[in-house]
Amino acid sequence: MNPYPLTPFEEALDLILQHTPRLDVEKVAFQEALGRVLAADVHAGEPLPSFRASAMDGFAVIADDPAEWREIIGEQWAGPASPLVVSLGRTVRITTGAPVPPGADAVVPVEYSEQAGGQVRFTRDVRPGDNLRPVGEDIASGQLVLPADTVIDPAGIGLLASMNRLHVPVYRRPVVAVLSTGHEIVEPGAAIAPGQIRDANRYTIMSSVVRAGGIPLSLGIVPDKEDALRIAFHQGLTQADVFISSGGVSMGERDLSRVLIEEWGTVHFGQVKQKPGRPTVFAIVDRPEFLHRRLIFGLPGFPVASLVSFENLVRPALRQMAGHTCLFRPTVKARLTHAIHRKGNRIEFQRACVEWRDGEWHATVTGLQTSGRLLSLAGANALLRLPIGAKRLEPGDIVTAIRIDQPEQ
Amino acid sequence: MNPYPLTPFEEALDLILQHTPRLDVEKVAFQEALGRVLAADVHAGEPLPSFRASAMDGFAVIADDPAEWREIIGEQWAGPASPLVVSLGRTVRITTGAPVPPGADAVVPVEYSEQAGGQVRFTRDVRPGDNLRPVGEDIASGQLVLPADTVIDPAGIGLLASMNRLHVPVYRRPVVAVLSTGHEIVEPGAAIAPGQIRDANRYTIMSSVVRAGGIPLSLGIVPDKEDALRIAFHQGLTQADVFISSGGVSMGERDLSRVLIEEWGTVHFGQVKQKPGRPTVFAIVDRPEFLHRRLIFGLPGFPVASLVSFENLVRPALRQMAGHTCLFRPTVKARLTHAIHRKGNRIEFQRACVEWRDGEWHATVTGLQTSGRLLSLAGANALLRLPIGAKRLEPGDIVTAIRIDQPEQ
Repeated sequence: MNPYPLTPFEEALDLILQHTPRLDVEKVAFQEALGRVLAADVHAGEPLPSFRASAMDGFAVIADDPAEWREIIGEQWAGPASPLVVSLGRTVRITTGAPVPPGADAVVPVEYSEQAGGQVRFTRDVRPGDNLRPVGEDIASGQLVLPADTVIDPAGIGLLASMNRLHVPVYRRPVVAVLSTGHEIVEPGAAIAPGQIRDANRYTIMSSVVRAGGIPLSLGIVPDKEDALRIAFHQGLTQADVFISSGGVSMGERDLSRVLIEEWGTVHFGQVKQKPGRPTVFAIVDRPEFLHRRLIFGLPGFPVASLVSFENLVRPALRQMAGHTCLFRPTVKARLTHAIHRKGNRIEFQRACVEWRDGEWHATVTGLQTSGRLLSLAGANALLRLPIGAKRLEPGDIVTAIRIDQPEQ
Repeated sequence: MNPYPLTPFEEALDLILQHTPRLDVEKVAFQEALGRVLAADVHAGEPLPSFRASAMDGFAVIADDPAEWREIIGEQWAGPASPLVVSLGRTVRITTGAPVPPGADAVVPVEYSEQAGGQVRFTRDVRPGDNLRPVGEDIASGQLVLPADTVIDPAGIGLLASMNRLHVPVYRRPVVAVLSTGHEIVEPGAAIAPGQIRDANRYTIMSSVVRAGGIPLSLGIVPDKEDALRIAFHQGLTQADVFISSGGVSMGERDLSRVLIEEWGTVHFGQVKQKPGRPTVFAIVDRPEFLHRRLIFGLPGFPVASLVSFENLVRPALRQMAGHTCLFRPTVKARLTHAIHRKGNRIEFQRACVEWRDGEWHATVTGLQTSGRLLSLAGANALLRLPIGAKRLEPGDIVTAIRIDQPEQ
């Protein structure tokens, strides 16, 4: 029998987030920072643009110049500034992005010009500042550009490049060691005997770790033998920030994982009042030989149960470690297209597809919901969160759908 | 002057998708297939489970056995099948996932059992099939499990592992060569003179290529000189599926990129009736020395313009090349929190944050919308698609917001 009390789902999630630290900070090259969380404010060291830049192809002029025809004294391409100076009666041909020569205070677009014999006149009025980007128009010197906790997106990468911030401090990505246990588990590609199955969990979990922004580390398949498991625990906990085992946490008598988890760490919960995924364990490891806390998750052996537990309980923790402040997927209210019969004694997460139709979301469960049936999760874009209590849901009832295909917000 | 006609945005997008091929198919190891698009149906070669498996820890029995007490003749753990056979008056202790011994037709959970002296009796009725997962319960032999065009998610990886499909055919990811042009462009980290700026575009575009599932290839910064550009075009078009240049497509007199694009390929449009991003070029290259068609995109030099054009026009093409059938981000109707004044002569994409409040989406533009100001895009989660015509939008007006933080669906 599982010796732990049944912890309500919300309490389990709270316990995890409360005991999960942000990881330490590392400096990375700006172009490697995509998707990472900034650990400090980034201010502009210089204004952008750092010179008065032309916003158009045309002519740099003095706006109030009374001359009708002006002499073209040279050209200023985008690129290093030439020594040209604009004075009354004179103009410089200029391209988009080029530095506006001293003296000029506006740019007239080429389409409003008429040229004749090295001279030009304009068919439109011009005012000081026209088509001229002042110094610091985009970013003022010293301005806070990217505050701490920003998740760097492609535009953020561009801002760092523009500001010459070659390295930035970001939170480290969690390294996650993943282990499968059980005599019945065989590596894909190897021969199987009757009674054995191929390891799916380690691969689904490692893929989910990648999706969550973590770095997976495979510990392979370890048989339910104390020595082998002990070595794997040591390897995982010394090399990784998070240790995940799947299998070995049900009520079977050879459940050595639980013994080892208790030996290494402090168990905060050992089973969760959820379906699927009841036999889910969470423990923390604080040891003097480790610079920082490790987390242990014992996930169920059934593939769907382990993936749903990962999604709801492990993924938020991995994101918190990596510095994210948005930890939860968006939810929508959706109308059921069919009835659901259930016991209703645990919170339940049914796999579903939601679809926008006639101004509202409609939810359809992805077939048989047994916790071994990975097919119920492949291609699902939502988990229906069915609360404790409601035993029977009718077609048309409104349920909460967690959009597992969308980023946290 | 730009010699090309102004192509309406929708027509530009149609032209791109119509001329963009799916790439060829490659076989990858199943664990590398995350996010890839399947190029062929995957059927199950064998049923799953491939043996009758216990769904609980308990006792394997004959359901109709009249005996009150049954003799425990052995144990069957999850793992290879033992030679035990269950007959009347006898039972085998069994764990979750273990093969149910021949003879038995049900499993009684351990919590409904009482043991005494090597015998057990049950406190609950049992029917044939109880807690027993029949062969093929999850997947029947020969069943279509993952149809062609499926995007492989973590559950899909697990299904491939379970079915022992070590390699799968997927569409190749596009290799995208990215080039910046202009004498004013300097590599971040290098010294700049007045009039020069640091290259942001190549980094924002390469990051966006990664986000779109492509493989970026940097061609560096190439000055607006014919020889250097000619070499870069040759390198990009021989090594990559898509060639993207930014800058060099405005009306400036040194716009050599356009000349080279026309030399290599067939231009389908040369400017788009959109804001920002008007000077956007699309061309295809069909040459006998290439095994398949290459695409060329000439993007504007202004950072925001190039990113918005990438998002709306290049990203759908990259996804189509990689086999995706969902090419467009979701949109929502959102209520403006403020007025927008605009010319209204081109379709416009303003950068914004949308937020769910009081039962509806609210949209707020991210400050000054000049096309050089990357700050307007960093952290934005939407592009407001403002149609041609509406010159002035009032607070409370409803606009269409493209959710650029959410995957295509």
